[in-house]
Amino acid sequence: MNIRFYNALILTMEEGVPVFDGEVWVRDEKLLYVGSGKDKDDFFREFAEPCIIWDEEIDCRGNLLMPGFKNAHTHSGMTLLRSYADDLPLHAWLNEQVFPIEAKLSKEDIYHLTKLAILEYLTSGITSIFEMYLTPESIAEACTEMGMRCVQTGGVNNFSQSVELLEKWYEELNGKHPLLSFLPGFHAEYTCSKELLKKIAAFAKEKKAPVYTHLSETEAEVAGCKERYGMTPGMFLDSLGMFEYGGGVYHGVWLTLEEMKIFKQKGVSVITNPGSNMKLASGIAPVESFLEEGLNVAVGTDGPASNNCLDMFREMFLVTGLAKLKRMDASAIDALEVLKMATVNGAKAMMLEDNGTLARDKLADMIMIDLHMPNMQPLNNIAKNIVYSGSKQNVKMTMIHGKILYLDGKFCVPDKPEDIYRKANEIINRLKQ
Amino acid sequence: MNIRFYNALILTMEEGVPVFDGEVWVRDEKLLYVGSGKDKDDFFREFAEPCIIWDEEIDCRGNLLMPGFKNAHTHSGMTLLRSYADDLPLHAWLNEQVFPIEAKLSKEDIYHLTKLAILEYLTSGITSIFEMYLTPESIAEACTEMGMRCVQTGGVNNFSQSVELLEKWYEELNGKHPLLSFLPGFHAEYTCSKELLKKIAAFAKEKKAPVYTHLSETEAEVAGCKERYGMTPGMFLDSLGMFEYGGGVYHGVWLTLEEMKIFKQKGVSVITNPGSNMKLASGIAPVESFLEEGLNVAVGTDGPASNNCLDMFREMFLVTGLAKLKRMDASAIDALEVLKMATVNGAKAMMLEDNGTLARDKLADMIMIDLHMPNMQPLNNIAKNIVYSGSKQNVKMTMIHGKILYLDGKFCVPDKPEDIYRKANEIINRLKQ
Repeated sequence: MNIRFYNALILTMEEGVPVFDGEVWVRDEKLLYVGSGKDKDDFFREFAEPCIIWDEEIDCRGNLLMPGFKNAHTHSGMTLLRSYADDLPLHAWLNEQVFPIEAKLSKEDIYHLTKLAILEYLTSGITSIFEMYLTPESIAEACTEMGMRCVQTGGVNNFSQSVELLEKWYEELNGKHPLLSFLPGFHAEYTCSKELLKKIAAFAKEKKAPVYTHLSETEAEVAGCKERYGMTPGMFLDSLGMFEYGGGVYHGVWLTLEEMKIFKQKGVSVITNPGSNMKLASGIAPVESFLEEGLNVAVGTDGPASNNCLDMFREMFLVTGLAKLKRMDASAIDALEVLKMATVNGAKAMMLEDNGTLARDKLADMIMIDLHMPNMQPLNNIAKNIVYSGSKQNVKMTMIHGKILYLDGKFCVPDKPEDIYRKANEIINRLKQ
Repeated sequence: MNIRFYNALILTMEEGVPVFDGEVWVRDEKLLYVGSGKDKDDFFREFAEPCIIWDEEIDCRGNLLMPGFKNAHTHSGMTLLRSYADDLPLHAWLNEQVFPIEAKLSKEDIYHLTKLAILEYLTSGITSIFEMYLTPESIAEACTEMGMRCVQTGGVNNFSQSVELLEKWYEELNGKHPLLSFLPGFHAEYTCSKELLKKIAAFAKEKKAPVYTHLSETEAEVAGCKERYGMTPGMFLDSLGMFEYGGGVYHGVWLTLEEMKIFKQKGVSVITNPGSNMKLASGIAPVESFLEEGLNVAVGTDGPASNNCLDMFREMFLVTGLAKLKRMDASAIDALEVLKMATVNGAKAMMLEDNGTLARDKLADMIMIDLHMPNMQPLNNIAKNIVYSGSKQNVKMTMIHGKILYLDGKFCVPDKPEDIYRKANEIINRLKQ
């Protein structure tokens, strides 16, 4: 399958490359060519192809092609609880509302609820998700059926999942399907015993694998860890040898400078979730400090029960907006840095090194941003337009692994959206009883 | 012209009325009927009409009808400067970037740039704007041509506009056109001499009119006023008799409790602009305190140079999200309260008492929210869905004064969007030189 996108503006997100006019050619799941189109003859000579028979040629009409967004932290199945239990603090929200309903969720429920989330990811230009939820097998099924690239991590804790299951998923979900991978992970320090954490660290060491977890989301969580172990959560986990092969922490709202320095040393990414941190009143993450310490910072929506949407445009604006407020400095974190977090850095945090930018031989995970909309005009600065005034409304196309899954407001997936909506409503109505 | 909307969910925003299934009938610029549709016979009897010949019947397919949003503070013509000069603090941004370019703007430029903003308002379900900018006549022209309801206020300061012009616009723009009105206003305490402020207060008293102004946007502004007059800006203006007939203040980020109490007494609304306050690092307004003091709180996007978008969904999320962070309380300001700010309270702040809710005989300023989108599912709570996960993508229709101006992503306005975009780019390219 050969697809040619022409008459486009292109933001490759390769270091130092400005927006340019050009073409992108996709062959099967990969980018065959990304350039101005003026060097076509050289290209054909190099590839010893006389020409390409196009299966599809798409006139971009001056719209922007760029790498798809990496949603580096989510719990897709929580679509169920969107607008179900809002306006509560994190612990009450989790313990009184989320956990009791989640306890009743079946694998099949999560399969359907994940599909609902995937539809929304597509409308937001999200081409890879970093998923932590209850039933990795049924999540994998939903993602492969719909065509979503999905890196999963474990959510092991004292009450559910286990190191044995981590091992099983690690073996079964890696290398199984080009859209899937699995990395070790656990829910959080405060839901895991020290013994369990040690077992997880040993498993990761054995596999030479990175480890992912929720960390320092609330002030209370940090205080609890200090009380239990006399250390902040990051220092405590590091003392157990958790991050010998890197990894990542979600939220990191209350990270100390000491923890940031360790994370830099160990290659631990921080995935910031500003929408969720606002809505649950967890605080403002010190993202400026993360950057100053040289950490790899990615962005995630968190689950739709705490956000409540899966909208990378909102998250991107919040990353810079909240940094500006926290520092009381309007120059904090510029738009291009935020776009980097949402693409290149996200890919890095998720161990997806081959889809962070648009370049020859990279995976064709690409979106088209509609510049023919009033919020994208005038074209003073396209990166700033996307971060400061962009919205889901501007996502004209979402392509994952060379397949167009969303185009002009229509989903190109096997399921009918209405069937997915009906299923989600059926599930919540059943579980509420 | 008779239009029937059927098969709808309806959120009237009338006090205490929950979402219900029903119909809305529009006759010319007004709502003729808002109800479940079961009492049609009673209706026809009361109106002594045997039946209605419909010019148009719209099947809403279960989508939501609600009052359009009131954008209670904006400077539409600043679309020009979107993404032109970001990442600067307020004073540097105003003095070094905004004012020099604005000084070159012609009436005709502002006419075109306002049209660009109007397109974006329509995509965001905004049906009334509260405008403060340089050339009220050409703004009025753009709004009437495009069909946008526009309340304007003066931006008098030491360098431009005057009380004489306020008087002229007050006479000329009130009662001239059903979409237009004008209320006295000035730029800010810090750009007006005491003498000028006294003249404005005297003018408002003579007309028995409310007065509007930017107030306490930054901490520096408050400190400056205290230095000049030994009082905070709100107390100082009140001491000049500025708010004898009410009015409103934009931003109010640094308002004191004392000022809030005076504003409550005088019927002064506070219009909060969270996106702009974040982006310019001005601070988080104490919106919870405004509500506790019983103030009328409305929401505005501010101009697109400081926000940078004109998106009431983003503003609504930020109102509650920032309140939750400021109080570190996830239960701060619930979704319905935010919707009230964006509709009913906005109308009140703008002296538009007849379009805040959907009810018989009110003006037909109405929007349709697409619930058949993944971010609106499941339907656990529609108000929360709109505020917490809604986006411009969900605006299926925008109707102002009984006219459908935006439907299914298409603009129903006299101008071609591409012409407006081209014009905006021409203007900025000319003025940049």
